Amino acid sequence: MDEQRLRALLESVRANTTTVDAAIHELRHLPFETIGDFARLDHHRALRRGFPEVILAQGKTPEQVAQIFGRLAERSNRVLATRVSVEMYAAIRDRLPEAIYHPLARLLYLDRSATQNRLDGIVVASAGTADMPVAEEAAITAELTGSRVERIYDVGVAGLHRLLDQAEALQRARVIVVVAGMEGALASVVAGLVAAPVIAVPTSVGYGANFGGLSALLTMLNSCANGVAVVNIDNGFGAGYLAGVINHLGRTTDGA
Amino acid sequence: MDEQRLRALLESVRANTTTVDAAIHELRHLPFETIGDFARLDHHRALRRGFPEVILAQGKTPEQVAQIFGRLAERSNRVLATRVSVEMYAAIRDRLPEAIYHPLARLLYLDRSATQNRLDGIVVASAGTADMPVAEEAAITAELTGSRVERIYDVGVAGLHRLLDQAEALQRARVIVVVAGMEGALASVVAGLVAAPVIAVPTSVGYGANFGGLSALLTMLNSCANGVAVVNIDNGFGAGYLAGVINHLGRTTDGA
Amino acid sequence: MDEQRLRALLESVRANTTTVDAAIHELRHLPFETIGDFARLDHHRALRRGFPEVILAQGKTPEQVAQIFGRLAERSNRVLATRVSVEMYAAIRDRLPEAIYHPLARLLYLDRSATQNRLDGIVVASAGTADMPVAEEAAITAELTGSRVERIYDVGVAGLHRLLDQAEALQRARVIVVVAGMEGALASVVAGLVAAPVIAVPTSVGYGANFGGLSALLTMLNSCANGVAVVNIDNGFGAGYLAGVINHLGRTTDGA
Amino acid sequence: MDEQRLRALLESVRANTTTVDAAIHELRHLPFETIGDFARLDHHRALRRGFPEVILAQGKTPEQVAQIFGRLAERSNRVLATRVSVEMYAAIRDRLPEAIYHPLARLLYLDRSATQNRLDGIVVASAGTADMPVAEEAAITAELTGSRVERIYDVGVAGLHRLLDQAEALQRARVIVVVAGMEGALASVVAGLVAAPVIAVPTSVGYGANFGGLSALLTMLNSCANGVAVVNIDNGFGAGYLAGVINHLGRTTDGA
Amino acid sequence: MDEQRLRALLESVRANTTTVDAAIHELRHLPFETIGDFARLDHHRALRRGFPEVILAQGKTPEQVAQIFGRLAERSNRVLATRVSVEMYAAIRDRLPEAIYHPLARLLYLDRSATQNRLDGIVVASAGTADMPVAEEAAITAELTGSRVERIYDVGVAGLHRLLDQAEALQRARVIVVVAGMEGALASVVAGLVAAPVIAVPTSVGYGANFGGLSALLTMLNSCANGVAVVNIDNGFGAGYLAGVINHLGRTTDGA
Amino acid sequence: MDEQRLRALLESVRANTTTVDAAIHELRHLPFETIGDFARLDHHRALRRGFPEVILAQGKTPEQVAQIFGRLAERSNRVLATRVSVEMYAAIRDRLPEAIYHPLARLLYLDRSATQNRLDGIVVASAGTADMPVAEEAAITAELTGSRVERIYDVGVAGLHRLLDQAEALQRARVIVVVAGMEGALASVVAGLVAAPVIAVPTSVGYGANFGGLSALLTMLNSCANGVAVVNIDNGFGAGYLAGVINHLGRTTDGA
Amino acid sequence: MDEQRLRALLESVRANTTTVDAAIHELRHLPFETIGDFARLDHHRALRRGFPEVILAQGKTPEQVAQIFGRLAERSNRVLATRVSVEMYAAIRDRLPEAIYHPLARLLYLDRSATQNRLDGIVVASAGTADMPVAEEAAITAELTGSRVERIYDVGVAGLHRLLDQAEALQRARVIVVVAGMEGALASVVAGLVAAPVIAVPTSVGYGANFGGLSALLTMLNSCANGVAVVNIDNGFGAGYLAGVINHLGRTTDGA
Amino acid sequence: MDEQRLRALLESVRANTTTVDAAIHELRHLPFETIGDFARLDHHRALRRGFPEVILAQGKTPEQVAQIFGRLAERSNRVLATRVSVEMYAAIRDRLPEAIYHPLARLLYLDRSATQNRLDGIVVASAGTADMPVAEEAAITAELTGSRVERIYDVGVAGLHRLLDQAEALQRARVIVVVAGMEGALASVVAGLVAAPVIAVPTSVGYGANFGGLSALLTMLNSCANGVAVVNIDNGFGAGYLAGVINHLGRTTDGA
Repeated sequence: MDEQRLRALLESVRANTTTVDAAIHELRHLPFETIGDFARLDHHRALRRGFPEVILAQGKTPEQVAQIFGRLAERSNRVLATRVSVEMYAAIRDRLPEAIYHPLARLLYLDRSATQNRLDGIVVASAGTADMPVAEEAAITAELTGSRVERIYDVGVAGLHRLLDQAEALQRARVIVVVAGMEGALASVVAGLVAAPVIAVPTSVGYGANFGGLSALLTMLNSCANGVAVVNIDNGFGAGYLAGVINHLGRTTDGA
Repeated sequence: MDEQRLRALLESVRANTTTVDAAIHELRHLPFETIGDFARLDHHRALRRGFPEVILAQGKTPEQVAQIFGRLAERSNRVLATRVSVEMYAAIRDRLPEAIYHPLARLLYLDRSATQNRLDGIVVASAGTADMPVAEEAAITAELTGSRVERIYDVGVAGLHRLLDQAEALQRARVIVVVAGMEGALASVVAGLVAAPVIAVPTSVGYGANFGGLSALLTMLNSCANGVAVVNIDNGFGAGYLAGVINHLGRTTDGA
Repeated sequence: MDEQRLRALLESVRANTTTVDAAIHELRHLPFETIGDFARLDHHRALRRGFPEVILAQGKTPEQVAQIFGRLAERSNRVLATRVSVEMYAAIRDRLPEAIYHPLARLLYLDRSATQNRLDGIVVASAGTADMPVAEEAAITAELTGSRVERIYDVGVAGLHRLLDQAEALQRARVIVVVAGMEGALASVVAGLVAAPVIAVPTSVGYGANFGGLSALLTMLNSCANGVAVVNIDNGFGAGYLAGVINHLGRTTDGA
Repeated sequence: MDEQRLRALLESVRANTTTVDAAIHELRHLPFETIGDFARLDHHRALRRGFPEVILAQGKTPEQVAQIFGRLAERSNRVLATRVSVEMYAAIRDRLPEAIYHPLARLLYLDRSATQNRLDGIVVASAGTADMPVAEEAAITAELTGSRVERIYDVGVAGLHRLLDQAEALQRARVIVVVAGMEGALASVVAGLVAAPVIAVPTSVGYGANFGGLSALLTMLNSCANGVAVVNIDNGFGAGYLAGVINHLGRTTDGA
Repeated sequence: MDEQRLRALLESVRANTTTVDAAIHELRHLPFETIGDFARLDHHRALRRGFPEVILAQGKTPEQVAQIFGRLAERSNRVLATRVSVEMYAAIRDRLPEAIYHPLARLLYLDRSATQNRLDGIVVASAGTADMPVAEEAAITAELTGSRVERIYDVGVAGLHRLLDQAEALQRARVIVVVAGMEGALASVVAGLVAAPVIAVPTSVGYGANFGGLSALLTMLNSCANGVAVVNIDNGFGAGYLAGVINHLGRTTDGA
Repeated sequence: MDEQRLRALLESVRANTTTVDAAIHELRHLPFETIGDFARLDHHRALRRGFPEVILAQGKTPEQVAQIFGRLAERSNRVLATRVSVEMYAAIRDRLPEAIYHPLARLLYLDRSATQNRLDGIVVASAGTADMPVAEEAAITAELTGSRVERIYDVGVAGLHRLLDQAEALQRARVIVVVAGMEGALASVVAGLVAAPVIAVPTSVGYGANFGGLSALLTMLNSCANGVAVVNIDNGFGAGYLAGVINHLGRTTDGA
Repeated sequence: MDEQRLRALLESVRANTTTVDAAIHELRHLPFETIGDFARLDHHRALRRGFPEVILAQGKTPEQVAQIFGRLAERSNRVLATRVSVEMYAAIRDRLPEAIYHPLARLLYLDRSATQNRLDGIVVASAGTADMPVAEEAAITAELTGSRVERIYDVGVAGLHRLLDQAEALQRARVIVVVAGMEGALASVVAGLVAAPVIAVPTSVGYGANFGGLSALLTMLNSCANGVAVVNIDNGFGAGYLAGVINHLGRTTDGA
Repeated sequence: MDEQRLRALLESVRANTTTVDAAIHELRHLPFETIGDFARLDHHRALRRGFPEVILAQGKTPEQVAQIFGRLAERSNRVLATRVSVEMYAAIRDRLPEAIYHPLARLLYLDRSATQNRLDGIVVASAGTADMPVAEEAAITAELTGSRVERIYDVGVAGLHRLLDQAEALQRARVIVVVAGMEGALASVVAGLVAAPVIAVPTSVGYGANFGGLSALLTMLNSCANGVAVVNIDNGFGAGYLAGVINHLGRTTDGA
């Protein structure tokens, strides 16, 4: 029920041309969700101000992606599309030159907000170089939520010293995204070193009994360390977004 | 938002003690769902008139089951509890002697409606005698929805003649529930014989590579026959309920 | 045993040139199924009158598909082929220009019946735009069974307000097909809102621990809502067909 | 390397009784971890001050649990043991009467801190009554981390109105734990309603193709809503702990 | 359609009291299967003469098993019940003292045929002593089909010499049943040594990544040796029965 | 140990130039397997006379396949290569024009034996046209073992009448190969109709929860009908070979 | 072929009472394996001197275990039985008082060899206290192979400092057994710290998505560290035995 | 903390310009791992002297592989890259002509050490020709660790005599790598013949229920033979490396 209809109904009640009973009846049978929806959207907008509008490009045509991205770019300072192919980017490049394409992370984004206002506090750590696409997807997403991201890559548990060399940086973080394929043990080891919440992203990197990321997923779910939660295999976006949300908790920010 | 509050608000608008803007604001920020909820519940009640109230007893204490069942029995002519243990029944037997317990199907139910008003049209077919608990769960549930049920048991595909002997009864049905464990092939064979919709229930009956009903589940999902849909393993209740819903489509009934 | 042979045998019994014992013997040893088959086919034809003849094109050559489709088009007003590739369509386009190809849903069909005779009552709801191919496969199939279909797309549970805005339309339906990938939660939420039977179609849309549609499949099978049954992953045809069958229950139709 | 040894070594360098080369050599070959370990522990202590010491009782004998719990109770105001059986509790009841045992959640805990200092901000929502043991494990754990917890139970998606009635409370939360078995769809629906991070706990509640919680786990991992991360099946402790950690971010607290 | 009804119909045709058209109509609409069924049963009886009547006791009550077994014992010389518990046997022991119970193989059987008429040709080989229950189920079943069985037990592939010592006996066999749990490699090795068909029975013996017999099942299905087919996990009966059927091919036997 | 060496050793013993002890020692430490191997090969050759030599082409280069095939063709009247690609066939076509390539079944074979000597008794039945490549692999393989094969295709259980029309042919068979994908129910239905052993071949035909043939595999393993054994998914060769072996049991043949 | 028969045959050749051709024939057709078997056993005995005789008690009766253990104890200084229940031990306790029962590891063993001759070089490390039964099974088994074992328990990766404190001991080892459940990450971390071969034992310790040890198994198989191999879930014996074998490589020992 | 900084700090303590307390503080808060890392690296270098530097090429660009390989080739006599594509090799061929590319095993390596110093003792055995790429990966890797490798290929268990012909060579080995796909039974059979440790490599060779190597993996994990450990599917490198490590135990070598 849009505001015009609601206002008209209430005016009519006030003018005594609609009885209270009739108004109650109408309120009950109109599409009720609209009212609640306004409330919720307002509420959300307040909380998520400055967060990007997000498009999952996978399964859409290049033209569809270009159109949706373009429309969002007209009304928002931060727009993000995930799982974007080169063909999709080609469809938007000329129309919207300010859009940036990151081929490794398969992200297409636009950020007109001031980067100096970003909140620090997020670390994205990854186990191997082959995990970098997912790690970058997480890192760029988190940046678009208005956070600064420290990248600590190639610190797999088989070479513990490289990880331990970064212990201080890890311990400074407010929230950590850990990206790892193969055996995925990095999440447990990092969570054992820090007090911050750890968001673990299993990747499909590996072969054989990796089963498309299942091994790393199970490892992370079964972590014996406290403070770890897991997102879907290769879901760098999800982890970066959640890290951004958590990083904004308890902060006052003027971003976007 | 309950009706009293809504009425008071509208009266206040009418009396001019609340402005239209204030009323709009309040409508937006009050728990909006209640309004819609009333509407939806009314709508549902009309559609589901005569359908039983249902309790999933599994995971509740005997006392909890007894209390919930008792309260529902005060306001409804048909009450059904599924996955009821003997201990749960013992907790209610004396308090509500009219409740009937079916130990094989693990159902506890009460039906004060006139059974002569039941709509015919449902057949429940099962493959082996070990599938009978699930088949009975489906059949009794369907009866409590106000349908008459014809039971055709022990007609597994390894003895095709027993099934074919029942072809006429199957072809008369408006909707058929097929219950089968082991290889679960009965659903495909029945669906190939009839025009009615078939609701397939895989059971966990079997051993070895049955994997707790997975084999029958996959068989039924992959049915090459048209007109088959599947419910969860051992979910006789779900199939019986859905069969009842389908059987009432296009009928006018005075049940319950 | 075709009718000619059967008639000849019975005439011979009547003429006393065949003894009753010999006739019994012959009846027993001739391919007995034919008799029953006639009965069954007649029975089916009455029930399914107006339903399309269906071809599963997958695994056939373009030439085979074209030939079978052509033969069926000679004797039936409604023909449907599923999982049709562009190459298969190319093989039939010139021979049968009235055949329509829907590349997204990969359906090839022909419908000479009057669309105004279609029965309303079916809603096809889908969660995301990437589920649209499967949803369209379901919707077009249902239309070919002689039903009108209301499409409610892109109402995934993460944006509940879009779904609730369509609550009225959902509650009007006699039978609902819900198509969803990823977590597949839409089926439960819709089934909780309506009294109509819900046929759930998991799709393989998603990635990672989606495991080719397994996540949505399990979600739908484990639905806590009453009145849900599930078809195979991506099986839009099966759901649309079953919805059509259910929608015709209790109706008198002059279709086809 | 404990501080005494390190100090002695440095004093010896200062006193010129150890050469710099010899000191470097010794520093390299002593158990190097101890140094870092002190640093890390200090760091942790600052961050996690007031958090409980935790024991996983599963796989230990009652006597072992009692002894470890007793020792921790001597030096900490908050002690928590998870997966505690009645037998284990019996072993400690008399020795430590102030310990509280929660049989449903199988938690044994002791909390001498002032509950009025708890930070609000955490909601624990669960789908069905059978999910309550896991939900309580999460809620009590979160309370022991120094947070206040609002419990919103029995709001499964099949009865959406009950959930929507709580929309306001959900939208007030800083962090939400969602506990659900069967199809586990609650996490997506809640995450679609709020801006706060959602920690999803799949439970093993259900039967058939639930496969011990796998269905809910996959649903949650594949959530189409932003801002969801998942912990292990039935891991209420893990979710409650992580919620506590997140809830303390950006807060100054004097707890414990 | 039983013979009486069919005969009456034909007599009536002959007597001219039923027209040929009416008879054709009746033949088509009567339960047609009965005719075919008679034919098939006769055919089967000739082929399977002397084979036992079989009851799957699992999922039946002791009383049910006792009654069915008793009835079959009245009309057959060989009766076999599988998966029989001690309680089931207790229910029949006094009523039918000639029935033999094999607790390890969980078989209850009765064999009044002359054992000297058994056909030789079957070997049952098993890998470990823990596989013996399944091996005995296979061996006794095969004996009840009228074959003599040579048992070669405890010849697992880790001690190849024990197996090779039996090479001659294996090479003499017409059909071999191989029973093995754990890695199940025995089937391939035996099939490589002989020209006879090998029926492989995976058992659930083992632990860990055995997954209830899955490891042996997959091993046997993937056998690189020619001439191996597999039955369900722990399905000694199925293998023994099939071996009996194969062993009778091309033989003339006066058994039973 | 080849015969020359063995003969030399024994001559030397006879000539007293080698002591018995030295001969025993040498016999023990020479590659002992050779002796046994001769015996076994002879034994096999007698039994399998006329059976083809078989090459698994998959994983070999075209040149390797051509060379091995050519060598075998020099010394054997029947040669069979499975999983042969078009490229592999191209490598041998000119060198060995009498070799026949069956692109659907991906078989390359050569058969110089007289086809009139083939033993009848084998039926290969398949459920759908998409199962034909595997069915043909089985049928041609069985023919190369010296059997005649009756093909009964496209008799899936969803159209039971087509199958029942072939009941007589099925009941005449000595051994039946059943090839089916999707739900794989055909094996159970056929085994229920006949007394002959049934070798079931699951195929990977299907989609969705078919999981590459797993659904049909599990269906067949869990068959409730007696007399069924299963080979690997898509393993038409294995089934045809085994059927040939079984069909030769108890026969005297002059083939090859 | 035992030595007596072989000797008699050769004597007969020498005495010219058997022709060379006849001897060759006899050698070929006698059970050839025996010869090789002697050779192999001798060979093995030399290599494995001092290794224990091993019994897998699981699936045997207490009396069987007692008898086999007793017989082996008569001829061997080291006997080991694995998976031994208390009941099994009770059957042997009085008969063989020197046998030692370890209830946690479920091992029954007897070792009359001098423990001072044991070779050092093996470390058994475990992640949690609940992994101790499997770790002890590995450690005791390794000791019975004649090695000394250093136990490093409770060094899970969530508390890295405890593990690093033991780095020196780990780096001294010639071969390391790593026992871990839950996420099983310890194997990778240890292998990254040392140059010695690591034998990883996943345990079934954990819950939820641990799936009976599958999570730890996959983690270990996918280890990104070099030098790791894996044994079956909970297979402490297998790891301890293999560690013993490896530890003896290149050593001269007088043990046992 | 590099040595310069450490030395400066200690000099400063000695010079009394830094207090002991300040030095302790600095030592604690500097990246502590560096100290330990030096120690560990030294330790490793001693142990692994002569072992190759290894690069996992998968997931890197050809240019990245070429650069890393080139850098390592400057400071090491043995460099190995695994999973190298032809494109990667093309990028390095001209720059480093001495690098050798093995297209089957997908290895790129460089070995300037003297091959005559290699330690013998390793056998790599494989079941089928299709397993050769993985077997070669293992063999070449083992050679690069400084061992001589005896290759025993195409000795699958279905032709046991070919394997037994090689028994002597197998029994001479100090450590054996067994490579097998399909049912993977070779590992158990080999381990039963020898006393040496067996490292089993399952391959993804096969089809159907092979499930990408899962069948061979489970077979090998469940081996009933003692002395077997398993690496990941297709992980020839891992097995060859571990075999090399084990083969060097107890040897003094001057290699590299």
